Amino acid sequence: MKRSFIREILESIDEETISFAGGLPNSLLFPVDDLKSSANNILKKRDVWQYSLSNGIKSLRKKIAKEYCKDGFETTSDNILITTGSQQALYILARYFEEKSIVIEAPSYLGAINTFKLNNLNIKTAPLQKDGIEIKAFEKVFEKAKLTYLIPDFQNPTSSTYSKSKREKVAKIIKKHKGIIIEDSPYSELFFEEKNKSISSLIPNNSFHLGSFSKTLCPSLRIGWIRASKELINKLLVIKESIDLHSCGLSQHLLNEYLKDDKKYQTHLNILRKFYKEKSEYFCKQLDTYLPEFVYNKPKGGMFVYGEFKEFDSFELLNRCMKRKVVFVPGCEFYVKNKNPHEIRFNFTNSSLEDITKGIKIIAQEIRT
Amino acid sequence: MKRSFIREILESIDEETISFAGGLPNSLLFPVDDLKSSANNILKKRDVWQYSLSNGIKSLRKKIAKEYCKDGFETTSDNILITTGSQQALYILARYFEEKSIVIEAPSYLGAINTFKLNNLNIKTAPLQKDGIEIKAFEKVFEKAKLTYLIPDFQNPTSSTYSKSKREKVAKIIKKHKGIIIEDSPYSELFFEEKNKSISSLIPNNSFHLGSFSKTLCPSLRIGWIRASKELINKLLVIKESIDLHSCGLSQHLLNEYLKDDKKYQTHLNILRKFYKEKSEYFCKQLDTYLPEFVYNKPKGGMFVYGEFKEFDSFELLNRCMKRKVVFVPGCEFYVKNKNPHEIRFNFTNSSLEDITKGIKIIAQEIRT
Repeated sequence: MKRSFIREILESIDEETISFAGGLPNSLLFPVDDLKSSANNILKKRDVWQYSLSNGIKSLRKKIAKEYCKDGFETTSDNILITTGSQQALYILARYFEEKSIVIEAPSYLGAINTFKLNNLNIKTAPLQKDGIEIKAFEKVFEKAKLTYLIPDFQNPTSSTYSKSKREKVAKIIKKHKGIIIEDSPYSELFFEEKNKSISSLIPNNSFHLGSFSKTLCPSLRIGWIRASKELINKLLVIKESIDLHSCGLSQHLLNEYLKDDKKYQTHLNILRKFYKEKSEYFCKQLDTYLPEFVYNKPKGGMFVYGEFKEFDSFELLNRCMKRKVVFVPGCEFYVKNKNPHEIRFNFTNSSLEDITKGIKIIAQEIRT
Repeated sequence: MKRSFIREILESIDEETISFAGGLPNSLLFPVDDLKSSANNILKKRDVWQYSLSNGIKSLRKKIAKEYCKDGFETTSDNILITTGSQQALYILARYFEEKSIVIEAPSYLGAINTFKLNNLNIKTAPLQKDGIEIKAFEKVFEKAKLTYLIPDFQNPTSSTYSKSKREKVAKIIKKHKGIIIEDSPYSELFFEEKNKSISSLIPNNSFHLGSFSKTLCPSLRIGWIRASKELINKLLVIKESIDLHSCGLSQHLLNEYLKDDKKYQTHLNILRKFYKEKSEYFCKQLDTYLPEFVYNKPKGGMFVYGEFKEFDSFELLNRCMKRKVVFVPGCEFYVKNKNPHEIRFNFTNSSLEDITKGIKIIAQEIRT
């Protein structure tokens, strides 16, 4: 097992580097004033500092459950397990399903791939298209594996988003074969136009639905969750407890306080969507201007622009750009096999407009040298 | 795998219950004013809310390393891996050593036993005596296993503390057989008389030394650490990253700020030691007065009084006491095999003096009914 290539890049760069590499939210948008005032409401309460429940504090689980209900997906606090980021949700599930076969999109999220490998899951893939996974290829591998990990909304790395029709087809296949979906949804709230209906809501008893506050609020709290049937949640609890007893209590109480005023959070999300949409459009415009040979689909949400050059090897390009302090992630990193050496994932959320232009110009210069 | 019996007890009790069951620090001693003012110094800094390094923020690792150096145990920030509580440290190591044999004390910490079982470690035991593990029995099993998990300071559950001589003997055996110790030290700072020298400091390259702020400051932050050679730390990093990317950033930054004034923390620790020593003495006095048939050793630190009745089955006693809203943990829970049905662990840190007397009187009544 090797470490995450992206985290290694992130740890090797300095403050002068223009990074299109990570999946970092823009820190200028963290609602620090609101978070600070929420903190000040709770910091003197002694139970905020004590041990708490393994599945997470109940009032926070209730608030998360309520959001599902708003979308018409019936959920109670018993359906929610709070995790230390959605990375831990993935780890817990990988541990739960260890040595089983699992179908994932090609390409897919690197942190999931690494966690599945560490837990000896047998990874099968089906190609990801612009409107979701290729259905025939998916069913062919899924009918044996009966377990899949998908990211239907603004996928990492590709930003692909499943059409309504593909969501229904996937749900139907899972139900038909009495299988299970792990649906990872860290970017679902970061839509530029409209919110999508989750696949899990179509098959509540065959699903683990994963959410996170890392992309929508701030990552340092390390708070994510798993939504599943009460029975499945209880099965995961023994693993959760063994891993860290419970997720950070301070973070949970702080989030719970912050979310008491739902309007505040909804306003924040609207700001985020507007800002990221503008960033994304600016990024694409710069690509079209300076790197017209880069072929990609415009993102409809999320944090990434993904595409490919016809000729250039993206690793070689990265090595050259790194010397000029510009980084991004070669697409190869997101594939288990059949790696396309020409693909690249750009993150657009975390750089200033000035740095976006500067960075893309440097990449263009390196390509033309 | 079953869940932790203790956490199940804790989750089933209500506010009226007198709990001698958990390992909860006394919440009245959390330095909430100092923590709040530390929080207010950092909450507006944007990097506090962003993703951070998998091994933990460097300034905090430096401060932890400095404490080791004070005790003459040479350590740098590269020797420290921040974990989500020391429970996660145990999990990471259990995962790293999965399916290996490991020697533990009988009895030992339940959270460790469960985590070792979950990761299919082959658990061997040697009896724990008043002054540490029984040396001959230890060497006999260790020479094959070459891996051990010990809690030399104010052990959970027994409060036993290793003598200087046994520490040296254990270190010698580990070195002789080129083995490894996982030394768990969550209670080391909670001494009533004097601090002990760790076994790890005698064999720095053959050890993982585990520490935590959960018992000394507050548990909800979920911050612990592993101290080991740089080479070993790097091997663990891939597992840590897979589990949760990194531990709560807010907690780490808050702790780092709080620890900037070392005097403040040292003063807090002194208050804690004095208060817990008094509680412990009071608890023992009440046991001697109302339950003279309970045989135990007086703790020299930590959070527990451990002992046994000659006649009564501790599970039966628990069931009867639970109905009267008094709980404790039967010793059986801390054994892998050869369970003694008469032993009990009492926690003395988390109850008021009034509740201690009341709780012990109820237990005495149930014994005499």
